[in-house]
Amino acid sequence: MTDLQQTIETILAQCQRTEIAGSVYPTNQRAGVAPDCLAIALVTINGDVYSTGDDTQQLALQSISKVFTYGIALEDHGRDEVLARVGVEPTGHRYNAIFLEETTGRPFNPMVNAGAIAVADLINGEDLTDMLNRVIQICSQYAGRRLSVDAPTFTYEFQTDHRNRAIAHLMRSSGALRGRIDDVLHLYYQQCSLLVNAVDLAHMGATLANGGVNPTTGARALSKEYVRDVLSVMYSCGMYDSSGEWAYRVGLPAKSGVSGGILGVVPGRLGIATFSPPLSKVGHSIRGLQAFEALSQVLNLHVFDVFPAQVASE
Amino acid sequence: MTDLQQTIETILAQCQRTEIAGSVYPTNQRAGVAPDCLAIALVTINGDVYSTGDDTQQLALQSISKVFTYGIALEDHGRDEVLARVGVEPTGHRYNAIFLEETTGRPFNPMVNAGAIAVADLINGEDLTDMLNRVIQICSQYAGRRLSVDAPTFTYEFQTDHRNRAIAHLMRSSGALRGRIDDVLHLYYQQCSLLVNAVDLAHMGATLANGGVNPTTGARALSKEYVRDVLSVMYSCGMYDSSGEWAYRVGLPAKSGVSGGILGVVPGRLGIATFSPPLSKVGHSIRGLQAFEALSQVLNLHVFDVFPAQVASE
Amino acid sequence: MTDLQQTIETILAQCQRTEIAGSVYPTNQRAGVAPDCLAIALVTINGDVYSTGDDTQQLALQSISKVFTYGIALEDHGRDEVLARVGVEPTGHRYNAIFLEETTGRPFNPMVNAGAIAVADLINGEDLTDMLNRVIQICSQYAGRRLSVDAPTFTYEFQTDHRNRAIAHLMRSSGALRGRIDDVLHLYYQQCSLLVNAVDLAHMGATLANGGVNPTTGARALSKEYVRDVLSVMYSCGMYDSSGEWAYRVGLPAKSGVSGGILGVVPGRLGIATFSPPLSKVGHSIRGLQAFEALSQVLNLHVFDVFPAQVASE
Amino acid sequence: MTDLQQTIETILAQCQRTEIAGSVYPTNQRAGVAPDCLAIALVTINGDVYSTGDDTQQLALQSISKVFTYGIALEDHGRDEVLARVGVEPTGHRYNAIFLEETTGRPFNPMVNAGAIAVADLINGEDLTDMLNRVIQICSQYAGRRLSVDAPTFTYEFQTDHRNRAIAHLMRSSGALRGRIDDVLHLYYQQCSLLVNAVDLAHMGATLANGGVNPTTGARALSKEYVRDVLSVMYSCGMYDSSGEWAYRVGLPAKSGVSGGILGVVPGRLGIATFSPPLSKVGHSIRGLQAFEALSQVLNLHVFDVFPAQVASE
Repeated sequence: MTDLQQTIETILAQCQRTEIAGSVYPTNQRAGVAPDCLAIALVTINGDVYSTGDDTQQLALQSISKVFTYGIALEDHGRDEVLARVGVEPTGHRYNAIFLEETTGRPFNPMVNAGAIAVADLINGEDLTDMLNRVIQICSQYAGRRLSVDAPTFTYEFQTDHRNRAIAHLMRSSGALRGRIDDVLHLYYQQCSLLVNAVDLAHMGATLANGGVNPTTGARALSKEYVRDVLSVMYSCGMYDSSGEWAYRVGLPAKSGVSGGILGVVPGRLGIATFSPPLSKVGHSIRGLQAFEALSQVLNLHVFDVFPAQVASE
Repeated sequence: MTDLQQTIETILAQCQRTEIAGSVYPTNQRAGVAPDCLAIALVTINGDVYSTGDDTQQLALQSISKVFTYGIALEDHGRDEVLARVGVEPTGHRYNAIFLEETTGRPFNPMVNAGAIAVADLINGEDLTDMLNRVIQICSQYAGRRLSVDAPTFTYEFQTDHRNRAIAHLMRSSGALRGRIDDVLHLYYQQCSLLVNAVDLAHMGATLANGGVNPTTGARALSKEYVRDVLSVMYSCGMYDSSGEWAYRVGLPAKSGVSGGILGVVPGRLGIATFSPPLSKVGHSIRGLQAFEALSQVLNLHVFDVFPAQVASE
Repeated sequence: MTDLQQTIETILAQCQRTEIAGSVYPTNQRAGVAPDCLAIALVTINGDVYSTGDDTQQLALQSISKVFTYGIALEDHGRDEVLARVGVEPTGHRYNAIFLEETTGRPFNPMVNAGAIAVADLINGEDLTDMLNRVIQICSQYAGRRLSVDAPTFTYEFQTDHRNRAIAHLMRSSGALRGRIDDVLHLYYQQCSLLVNAVDLAHMGATLANGGVNPTTGARALSKEYVRDVLSVMYSCGMYDSSGEWAYRVGLPAKSGVSGGILGVVPGRLGIATFSPPLSKVGHSIRGLQAFEALSQVLNLHVFDVFPAQVASE
Repeated sequence: MTDLQQTIETILAQCQRTEIAGSVYPTNQRAGVAPDCLAIALVTINGDVYSTGDDTQQLALQSISKVFTYGIALEDHGRDEVLARVGVEPTGHRYNAIFLEETTGRPFNPMVNAGAIAVADLINGEDLTDMLNRVIQICSQYAGRRLSVDAPTFTYEFQTDHRNRAIAHLMRSSGALRGRIDDVLHLYYQQCSLLVNAVDLAHMGATLANGGVNPTTGARALSKEYVRDVLSVMYSCGMYDSSGEWAYRVGLPAKSGVSGGILGVVPGRLGIATFSPPLSKVGHSIRGLQAFEALSQVLNLHVFDVFPAQVASE
């Protein structure tokens, strides 16, 4: 296990040596987050925590939040009803494409903006405040501590949201969205603005790796029957239009966000988080991709790389 | 292990009771294959064979052959060179779409026709005959017996291939294809016309499940280092524009073909084959889909359904 | 000139004999407009009026209003500034496509919804009321009488406008729209709800045919220098994704609206209007198309059918 | 009439002063055509000829040939049969797009490559030689002298034609093409390689302006009833995906070719030709566009600019 600590420190040092020239998301710029801030954290399903770098730096969840609200929607409505509203196919298009399935009018999957907005529309609650409280509470169960919303991030998103509003109105037109658009987008931007550090995020991944139970607190954040569904869409669609390349090179269920975080899950073993703000053109953290490729290779994490050990022993 | 035999017999009986109304591919119609022909076969990585139904009925590999030629291309040129020529992203489009990656001019992945034709162009060989002999020989190593080409299937495909020729010329225009188009398509239709029965196909899957070595003959069909790559593209792209739904519901690397076969791989455990000609609108065997959903559920094969047993025990 | 009256009566009778099975737009249904209502009207540039059928039946202008607001935008900002905001290319897509020019972010042309909404954003005025008053006043100058807005049509459109709102937010995101979206759409739906009968509409066309001056009142509705621009976009884009077929068969600058009207202009000669609510799948009045094809043929109106008379005489 | 000569000389001088930086088509480069070669020619329907600049320089017709073969197809099969095989809608896509009408499988119009190849398939003839002879003979009637094919252009096109072959196979697959693809493309590249100078080309335009009869020779090249159809598709689709902008700014039926020629027709008045090899990104002659804009303005040629004279006088 000391091996794991040493492994992430080695990889962190490698990543720090790499030149980075990507863009930094505006809310990070405005908040003064250092572009060379970098953290890697692992949490095992036994609750062991390994972290290195700027692991107390908080960033907004942004699109990573889509993973957790999809789980809430599954619990609130069941698999069939959620599938009827939001598909599970990768799109081959940008994450903010204004684009629904032609025959069904559904968004393609819950990991693109259209799908995540449709998922926000599926969160149960007496009113908007109640819905938001549930989202915060459940995300906090994944993280193992009470999370809070970053007001500047929320306000920035709300102020610049014309593209998402276009998506929401298109979905209302197709029948994919039913609630008040203002409320749905309000909730969506609140979930995107939840602050976590890398250790929090690794706990969130470990909760999924552990079948829905936070390995440190023992609290259940997601019913076991829906963990598989959440991991499936992360694997197929979590890295947007480079999900295929990620599946080929890294081979883990994962989700990236524009603030520079990447969440990875090794089912039955680990949650992984990386933090580094500069983004590639596709919108992923550049050093995060580098760290995950290295981790996958060194720790043999690719979901289809099962042979070196297993095959020999069987 | 008797459990496995009983499981597939029960599932076969269930599938037989289902009404099917799908279309049957012309080469099957002309060859007089019974539309209600149905077979299920499993081969473990220990070489145990379980099969039921019409398991001696031979069908052409068709698109399932794309799996094996992709492996040959990887061995002939290495991962980087193959990636430079053929991508690994799902497309969101039909398998026969005339459509390349905009920035690279590459086909999207080796499981759609464009990608498979580009892969055929990458098979090494002194001449066309030599290339074909290598493909037959290596596919035969997967199957564990000498396979042969069905002449009427080859001729039918060659005669009706205008869409694939359009794809080939488009790729020649973008630089994705370099060989003589007639030769490349000749080789492609030959590989599609290789005949297998369900037990052969399950052996082919078991060879992948076993890290590239046929568990019955002990012959290596694919270097271990490329098995992961082949399984990755099967998982992401093997079921065409319903790959996401397959990953969600069944959760196995798989490949379907228009003659009615579906190949599945449970890495480290099993190869699975189903045979039933009637096809859904997407182009998959209807009863094959049904059988795989049942198998995945009963045998707990979903790649992210690791918790019921593992989590509890760790 | 009595010939013209007889011609339209003959054509009306032919059209009435044709079975029609198209859909009727909801606002017409709710207002109790008879589906078999039919009118044809011609106004010459000398102010002679010919009409037949239900020529006092009023219908909302709907998309036909796009013609007149485009003229206002040209007068308010000049050709170059308007071109910088709204293109002049036919799209090959549906009139309500959510789709902008890739390199410029502009809507394709002022005859599709996106372009017309961008044009509404270009109408000068101190406030929304002032802008609306200008639109009503100028449209009234085209018609030669004071037009008024149909409140139920306005309310219906405002209530069901999610697709147009999606378009507006997308244009705000691309920079193509600058005003408050609520105001712009409010104005757009008001202009769409202006009521005219077939004789009014034929006067509006005659005003364009006459270089911008209403031939009956002598009032100028549009500067002569912009008449050509308005006619050009009507010809290229006015009949949506069947503009090419219209140009081929009928060969006149024209614009259709979902309430069942079609406006045609024979430059230097005539304004033409037809009214008949049932719509084809493309969204044009079925009997209106039929009447215009007959008129074009009988009266030799196709813009490129100049030879029978002219060639012989020169 | 001396005015016309002076007008084109003035415009030629203006165009020569403009810096040009466009690309020159390979066959022009290889043939050593000077990039600054420039010619303007007008022929009236009375047979008066005005020309200036390099008016004996020959260039291949390239896409301009599509105009004349469309006329032949109309004569060979009639309007309805040709319409059933090739549409008349502008596409909004590039001229070499691999793209057919979704519902019909037809190419969009005869001015894009797909449509022109489908039109070549419609030319009657006992064999390929006979078909070619008819095309040469009829094009020669338009020009008023015997035209010949440029062998290097033909060979270059034939050698680099993978994109057109892709289009042809796609059309064969959709049923839009019926002949042998090799023959159809052979004929298509021959027609594209016909050599003309600017005066020839202006005669070809004057023949269309004159209702199908060459004004110099008196020979009929096209039945009068199809002249309107040819002019209609030139106007709607002749300038590819900038046809709308051309219709807005210039307002004439026209057709451009990659060798640097542009053909314009003023029905009932003039044929116009410009020659200048450097091309814009869309693929039009840069100085040709400039010359046509100037000619349209000075000579008042825009089809909807009928008011300055006519309206005043009526």
